[in-house]
Amino acid sequence: MSSEKKKEKLPTLLVIASTTEEDWVKLCSEYSSHFRVIQTTWDKISLSSYSDSKYPMVSIHPNSNPLYPDQNETINDIKPELVLVRNLARYISSKLETVPDFRNILYGFYHSNIPMINELSAIIAELEKPIMYGRLRKIRDLYGEENFPLIQQYYYPNYSEICITPSAPYVLKVSFPHAGYGKIRVKDYHDLDDLRSILALHKDYAAIEPLIDVDYELRIVFIAPNYYRVHKRSSLNWKVNYGMSNIREDCEMKPNWKKWIDLIHKTYPDMLTFDIDSLVDKKGKEYILEVNGSSQGFAPEHGNQDLEHMRDLVVRKMEVILGKDLLREDNEAKSLFKEDNKINVKELDNEKDTEIVNLKNLLDDFKHQLNRSNIKYHELKVKYKNNSNDKKNIYIFLLNIIIIILAVSLFGKFKLR
Amino acid sequence: MSSEKKKEKLPTLLVIASTTEEDWVKLCSEYSSHFRVIQTTWDKISLSSYSDSKYPMVSIHPNSNPLYPDQNETINDIKPELVLVRNLARYISSKLETVPDFRNILYGFYHSNIPMINELSAIIAELEKPIMYGRLRKIRDLYGEENFPLIQQYYYPNYSEICITPSAPYVLKVSFPHAGYGKIRVKDYHDLDDLRSILALHKDYAAIEPLIDVDYELRIVFIAPNYYRVHKRSSLNWKVNYGMSNIREDCEMKPNWKKWIDLIHKTYPDMLTFDIDSLVDKKGKEYILEVNGSSQGFAPEHGNQDLEHMRDLVVRKMEVILGKDLLREDNEAKSLFKEDNKINVKELDNEKDTEIVNLKNLLDDFKHQLNRSNIKYHELKVKYKNNSNDKKNIYIFLLNIIIIILAVSLFGKFKLR
Amino acid sequence: MSSEKKKEKLPTLLVIASTTEEDWVKLCSEYSSHFRVIQTTWDKISLSSYSDSKYPMVSIHPNSNPLYPDQNETINDIKPELVLVRNLARYISSKLETVPDFRNILYGFYHSNIPMINELSAIIAELEKPIMYGRLRKIRDLYGEENFPLIQQYYYPNYSEICITPSAPYVLKVSFPHAGYGKIRVKDYHDLDDLRSILALHKDYAAIEPLIDVDYELRIVFIAPNYYRVHKRSSLNWKVNYGMSNIREDCEMKPNWKKWIDLIHKTYPDMLTFDIDSLVDKKGKEYILEVNGSSQGFAPEHGNQDLEHMRDLVVRKMEVILGKDLLREDNEAKSLFKEDNKINVKELDNEKDTEIVNLKNLLDDFKHQLNRSNIKYHELKVKYKNNSNDKKNIYIFLLNIIIIILAVSLFGKFKLR
Amino acid sequence: MSSEKKKEKLPTLLVIASTTEEDWVKLCSEYSSHFRVIQTTWDKISLSSYSDSKYPMVSIHPNSNPLYPDQNETINDIKPELVLVRNLARYISSKLETVPDFRNILYGFYHSNIPMINELSAIIAELEKPIMYGRLRKIRDLYGEENFPLIQQYYYPNYSEICITPSAPYVLKVSFPHAGYGKIRVKDYHDLDDLRSILALHKDYAAIEPLIDVDYELRIVFIAPNYYRVHKRSSLNWKVNYGMSNIREDCEMKPNWKKWIDLIHKTYPDMLTFDIDSLVDKKGKEYILEVNGSSQGFAPEHGNQDLEHMRDLVVRKMEVILGKDLLREDNEAKSLFKEDNKINVKELDNEKDTEIVNLKNLLDDFKHQLNRSNIKYHELKVKYKNNSNDKKNIYIFLLNIIIIILAVSLFGKFKLR
Repeated sequence: MSSEKKKEKLPTLLVIASTTEEDWVKLCSEYSSHFRVIQTTWDKISLSSYSDSKYPMVSIHPNSNPLYPDQNETINDIKPELVLVRNLARYISSKLETVPDFRNILYGFYHSNIPMINELSAIIAELEKPIMYGRLRKIRDLYGEENFPLIQQYYYPNYSEICITPSAPYVLKVSFPHAGYGKIRVKDYHDLDDLRSILALHKDYAAIEPLIDVDYELRIVFIAPNYYRVHKRSSLNWKVNYGMSNIREDCEMKPNWKKWIDLIHKTYPDMLTFDIDSLVDKKGKEYILEVNGSSQGFAPEHGNQDLEHMRDLVVRKMEVILGKDLLREDNEAKSLFKEDNKINVKELDNEKDTEIVNLKNLLDDFKHQLNRSNIKYHELKVKYKNNSNDKKNIYIFLLNIIIIILAVSLFGKFKLR
Repeated sequence: MSSEKKKEKLPTLLVIASTTEEDWVKLCSEYSSHFRVIQTTWDKISLSSYSDSKYPMVSIHPNSNPLYPDQNETINDIKPELVLVRNLARYISSKLETVPDFRNILYGFYHSNIPMINELSAIIAELEKPIMYGRLRKIRDLYGEENFPLIQQYYYPNYSEICITPSAPYVLKVSFPHAGYGKIRVKDYHDLDDLRSILALHKDYAAIEPLIDVDYELRIVFIAPNYYRVHKRSSLNWKVNYGMSNIREDCEMKPNWKKWIDLIHKTYPDMLTFDIDSLVDKKGKEYILEVNGSSQGFAPEHGNQDLEHMRDLVVRKMEVILGKDLLREDNEAKSLFKEDNKINVKELDNEKDTEIVNLKNLLDDFKHQLNRSNIKYHELKVKYKNNSNDKKNIYIFLLNIIIIILAVSLFGKFKLR
Repeated sequence: MSSEKKKEKLPTLLVIASTTEEDWVKLCSEYSSHFRVIQTTWDKISLSSYSDSKYPMVSIHPNSNPLYPDQNETINDIKPELVLVRNLARYISSKLETVPDFRNILYGFYHSNIPMINELSAIIAELEKPIMYGRLRKIRDLYGEENFPLIQQYYYPNYSEICITPSAPYVLKVSFPHAGYGKIRVKDYHDLDDLRSILALHKDYAAIEPLIDVDYELRIVFIAPNYYRVHKRSSLNWKVNYGMSNIREDCEMKPNWKKWIDLIHKTYPDMLTFDIDSLVDKKGKEYILEVNGSSQGFAPEHGNQDLEHMRDLVVRKMEVILGKDLLREDNEAKSLFKEDNKINVKELDNEKDTEIVNLKNLLDDFKHQLNRSNIKYHELKVKYKNNSNDKKNIYIFLLNIIIIILAVSLFGKFKLR
Repeated sequence: MSSEKKKEKLPTLLVIASTTEEDWVKLCSEYSSHFRVIQTTWDKISLSSYSDSKYPMVSIHPNSNPLYPDQNETINDIKPELVLVRNLARYISSKLETVPDFRNILYGFYHSNIPMINELSAIIAELEKPIMYGRLRKIRDLYGEENFPLIQQYYYPNYSEICITPSAPYVLKVSFPHAGYGKIRVKDYHDLDDLRSILALHKDYAAIEPLIDVDYELRIVFIAPNYYRVHKRSSLNWKVNYGMSNIREDCEMKPNWKKWIDLIHKTYPDMLTFDIDSLVDKKGKEYILEVNGSSQGFAPEHGNQDLEHMRDLVVRKMEVILGKDLLREDNEAKSLFKEDNKINVKELDNEKDTEIVNLKNLLDDFKHQLNRSNIKYHELKVKYKNNSNDKKNIYIFLLNIIIIILAVSLFGKFKLR
C-alpha cells in the first residue's frame, strides 16, 4: 500500500483555520501515524451529511494560500472524526458580492454528530453576541460583580428600541461581527439620532456599553485542561483589534483573572478553549469585555505555545474518540471530558494555583527558547510532573528553572563569541 | 391600593401564544393571587435588556385579536419572571412586506437571564432543522434504530451540493419552516433538476427524506414531568399539517412510543415539553419524523387537557423561581428540575408505566367530562396519588374509574330523559 | 342597475396614497360620473397581471385608516386605467418583522402596461438615489453649474470604496431611503472610520456631500403642465424633514428656480410632477439637493392647491386614456403629453413667465380663501385665460385680483362684526 | 514617452465580459491608436464617482483568467469613456458565500454619466423580467399578436398571489435569473401546491407561461444599425440553455423575424443590441419567449462575426463620444444615434430587406472562411457597397459570391492534396 493510500485510511482531523497563520499538519506531525490532518478555510468546504453513513461526505477545494502542494487539488471523500473550528463561521467581507455565512456547513457537522471543538452550543454563543453576554451575565449574577466584573451592557433587538441608554459617551455595537467591525463611539444624543437613522436600514440587534477610558486591554487565554496565559494590548486606535497595529506585552497571571477563567469554564463546559478580552481603565478598574471561543486569535509573541496547547487539547479529544492513548499523561488532564461542575468561588481564589500557572508558562517559554537554541530538553522534562497537589514538585521545578536559566545564559555567551 | 395596581406588583408570567387559540389568563386564573399572566404574540413585543436591571423592560402593543379589554392598550413596564414560548420566533408570512423573524427578541430574554420554557438551546434546535435532526440522530446512534426508528435523512448546506440522493421518489425539505411550508415531493431526477434551478436563487439548506407510503401519522405529546398523550392524524393531503383539514383520533400510548419520549427527555433535559411526529406506513413500520418543542400545536379533541398539563409545568417552574409552593404535590414531580440523566434503555421498556400513562389519560378525560357535567369530583381526586411505585394504588384507581363510569353513565341517562 | 353596480362599471383611477393625509375620492368628486377613484396604500394591494387580459386583477384589502365605510371590506376585481403613485414603493419600517418593498407590485402594473404617474422610469429613479443624481448631473453637465447648481456628491458602491472624500465635515447618505433616514453628519476621519465599520455589515451604496451651513431650505413644486410653487423650510434639526417639526413659509417663485424646474421637466418628460429640495447657505448660495417625484409630500399651508393641480394632471391623463374631454381647456395644457423636448436655456430665463407663475399662485390662494368664505367665484373664473403669450390678459387678471382683494376685505369686515 | 504611458493617455473603452470567451483587446486592435481597451468582469471592478470629476475613478483587480500578462496586476486610475456591458450585473452563484449583485457599480457609471451599451434603462429591463415583458407586451398591444406573437404570461408579485394560472402543464419562472435558473415545469395543481410551499420562503416575483411542445428554439440576434442573424437551437433538455449541451444550426432570416427585431428596435432605441429567444412548436407556431440585451451570448458557430459587428457598434459610439471618424462609413450607419422612431408595420414587412440581410450574412461567412484560408479579400471588398436602395448591387454582389465560392472550392482542393 502506498504511503498516500495509507494516509487516507487514517482517522482524519479537520482543522478550519487560516493557512497563512497556522500550520496544523506540522503541529500534529508527531501524531501523523495516528491521524491525518486536513486544514482548510470555510469557503473551501463542500459537505453532505447522510444519516445512514457514520461520516459526512466532505470535499475540500483547492486552497488559495496552500501550505502544501497537495492543497492545490480538490481532496474528496474526507471523513472527519473531529473538527477544530479556528475560524468564525460568519464574518464581514469587503467584497460587494461576498456574504460569508457558513452556518449551514456548521449545522451539517452537527447533523452527522461529528465532535467539534468547541461544541456547537459554544460556537453558536460565539456567533451571536447577546447569547454570549447572557452566558457571562449569568456568572456575574451568580457570583457577584466583585468576582466577575462584567461590563455594563444595554441590548436592543431593533434600532427603534434604542431609547434609554447609559450616559454618553458610549460605544454602540451593532450585529454579530468581531474584529472591530460594527462598533462606533457615540458622543451625544445628536450623534445617536443620526446613527439610528442609519441602523433603521436593517434589522440588526445592537448593544450599548459605556466608553471606558482605557489604559490597556488584557487578553486572557484558556485551553483545557489547565493552560492559562495572559498578555496586555494597547493601541493608538480606540478599537485595539481593528486595523491599526497594536502593542502586545506578556504579563503574569493574577488570581482574580484565573478565577474569571475558572468560573466560565466550570459554568460552560462546552467551551473547551476561549479567551477573555478585558479592559483596565486609567484608575486600574477592570472590566470583562467579551469572550472569544475556539476561533480566538493568538499573540505571535507566544510563538507556537498557545497553538501547541490547543494541539494537545485536540489530541486528548482524539484519544477519547479513537479509544486509544496518544499522550500518556497523568490522570488530571485525562479527566477533562468527564469532570463534574460544582464550583466553590472561594476555592477558585487559590493563589498557589496561579503561581503554578505562571511558573508553568515561564517554563514553557524557556522550553521554546531552548528548542530554538538546539539544546536537548528531554532530561529536564521527565523530572517535572504536572501535579498541582504535590507541593514539593514546585521546588524541584524551580530548581530546574534555575538550571535552565544558567544553561541558556551560558549557551548565549558561547553563541555570542 | 387598587386591584389593578396590586396586579402590577405581582410577578409576571409572559406567554407568547396565539390569542385566538389559547387563553392563559383563564388557564392560570387559580393562581391569579400569586402571579400575573400577560399573553401576546411575537410581533407585539418591544424589549430592551439592561445588565444593571434584574428584568428586561418589556412593552406589549395592542393585540389585533384581544382576549380581554386591557389588551387594546399598550402595556408598559412588564418585568417577566418566566417566558413561555408557544409560538415559533420565526415563521412564514404570505404578505410581501412581512418577514417574521423575532430571534433578536428571543436573544433579549436570554441577555436578561429570564427563564424560558423551553430553554434557549432547545428553542434554537426547534428553529434550525439540522440541529434538531442532529439531536435525534445522536439518540439513534446511541440506542439503535430498533429503539429509536428515526427516518433516513440527507442534509445539504446549499443547493449545489444536492448530488447524491436517496432513491426517488423522495421529499425535499427546504430551510427552517414548519407547518408544511418548504416541503415538496420529487418524483425523479428531472424534477430535482428543475427544483435545483429554483433553490439556486437563495442560500437555504435542504434535506431529503424518503417518501413514505403513509397509512397514518402519530403525534405523541410530552409535558414534563410525566404527561404523555398520543393521537393519530390522517389527511387527504400528503402533508398532514398543511392547509387541508386532517382527521384526528385519540389512541392509547404504547411502550415503544413512551420509550422514544423518555430517550429524548433524558438526553435533552432542556426540552421540558415537546411532541414527536411519527409516520406509520402501510406495512405498519414506524418512523420518527420530527420533534416540535414548546411551540407544538395541540389537538382540539383533548380539550384543555394538554394545556392544563402545560400550565402545571409552568406553575412548577414558577414555584422554583418564586421559591414558594403553589401546587402542593408529591415529591416525584417536584424533582423535575433537579433530576439526573442516566438512562437504561431496558428500564424504559416498562409496560406497566405505559399502562399507568394510559389510565391517567383516561382518568383525565373522565374528569373533563365530569366537569362539563357539573358533578363534583373532589372526593375522587384525593384518593388517587400519582405514585408510580405504589402498585396497589393502580387497583384503587381502577376501582375509582369504574365508579366514575357508572356515575357518568347514570348521569347520562338522567340527562337523556 | 344599482348605483354601486354602475360605479363598478366606470373606469378606475387607482391612487396609492396615505388615507390619513389625502382624500382623492373627494378631490375627484366632480368627475365621479366619468371615473371611479380607489385610494389605498401599497401594503393593501394584491395584484396578478395576465397577458391575455387588458387589465391586471387588483384586490384592495381593508384599510387600517379607512376614509369611507366601503374601505373596511376587501374590494375585488379592480381594473385600473391609471395609477397615481403618491407613496414610495419602498421605505423604512420601525417594526422588526416588516421590510416594506413593493417593487414587485410596481413591476406588475408595468407588466400590464397600465399608465402610471410618474412613469416607471421616473419612479425607478426616485427609488435609487444614484440614478436620480445621475439624471440631475446630466443637466448640470449640459447647461453648466451657473444654470443648475447641483450639490457636489461622491458616490461609493460599497463601504470598502469610501476612501477619497470631500473635506470634513460632510454628510454621509446611505442606501435608498428618504425622509431623513440613512443620513449622518461626519466630523472627521475618526468618525468615518467608526462609521465604515458599521456600513461593512451590509452591501449598501453610499454617497457623501459637503455639510452646508444652511440658512433655509427651499421646496419647489412642479406639476405639469405649468404649476410652480415654492416654500421655505427651516428646522432646529439639521435634517429639515426628519422627526422634529419644521417651520414652513410660502415665498414667491424666482426666475432661476423656475429655470431649474423647466430644465428637469424638458430633459426628463417621464417626470410629470416632482419637487426640488434645495438649500440656501448663510451667504445666500443655493444648492440643488435632491428631486422627489410623484410621491413628494405637500406643505399643508397650500391647503388643497397642490393636490388640486395634481388632480388636474390626473384628469388630463384620464382624458387621453378614455379619449374624451373632461376639462375643456385651452390648447397649451392639452399638448402636455405630445410636446417636443428642445431646450433653449436663454428662453427659460423669461422673467415674465415667472411673474405669471407668481400671480397665478396668488390668484389660487385668493380662490381658496374665497371658497372658504362661500363667495361664488364663477364669474371671475371665466374672465381669465391661461395663455402666457397673451400679455394683455395679465392686466385683466391683475384687475381681477384687485376686485377680489376688495371683495375679500369687505367680506372680512362683515364677518368680523 | 513610453508606449505604456502613451496608452494610458488614450481614451478608454471598458468592456465587462468573460475573459475566457471573448478578447476585446484583439477585437479592437485595429483601433489601438485611437482608444485603449480594458476588459474585466464585474467582480474585479472598484469604482468611485465624483461629481466634480468628469470620469469615475475605476480600478480593476487582477483577473482570475487573465488574457494578457498585465491583467495579473491591479490597474488603477481608469477613466472610461464608454462601458460595454457583456455580463449581467446580477446572477446566480453556486457558492454559499457569494451573492453576485453588482447593480451598485452599474449605478456608479450612471452617476458619472458614462455612456453605456446598452443604456441604463435597457439594462434595468434586462435585469427585471416583468419590466422586459412589459416592454414586449406594449409592442404586441400596439401592433397585434399576428405581428408580434409574444408568449402568454401571468405575473405574480408574491407566491401568495399564484391562484389563477393557465391550464397545466405550464412553466413557472421565479425571480430574475437567466441561463435556465429559476425555471420549473408544473404538471398539475398538486405540483403547484408543493412548489408554492417552497416559494413562500422568499419574496420573489414569479411568472407562469404555457409549456410549449417545442420543436426547436430560435435565437435572432440584432446589432445596430443593421446586423441581423438567426440560428436554431435544440436540446434533449427542455431548457435549451441550461446545463446540457445543445445543438445549434445556422438558418436564414425570414421577413417576420426581421419585423420583430425592427419593432423592438424602433420602440426601444435604448437597446442598441439584443436578441430574441423564440420557440417553434411541433405545429410550426412561433412564440416570442424573451429578449436579452447587450449581455446576450453568441453562438460559437458564427466565429467572431457577431462580436465584430458588436465591435463596430462600439466604435461608432466611440466616434460620437470622441468627435472623430474612425470607421469612414456611408451615411446610413452613421445616423444610428440620431434616427427618429416612427414605425410603419407594413413597411417593416419588406421581403427584399430580409433577402439583403441573408445575403450579407452569407457574404460575411465567406469572408471569414477566406480569412482563415489566407486569401486576400481586399479586391472583392471594395466592389460591394452596403446600399440597400441600389438594387443592381445585389446582382454584382451575387456574382462576387459565385467567384468566392469558386475560389474557396479551388483553394480547398489544393489544400487537400
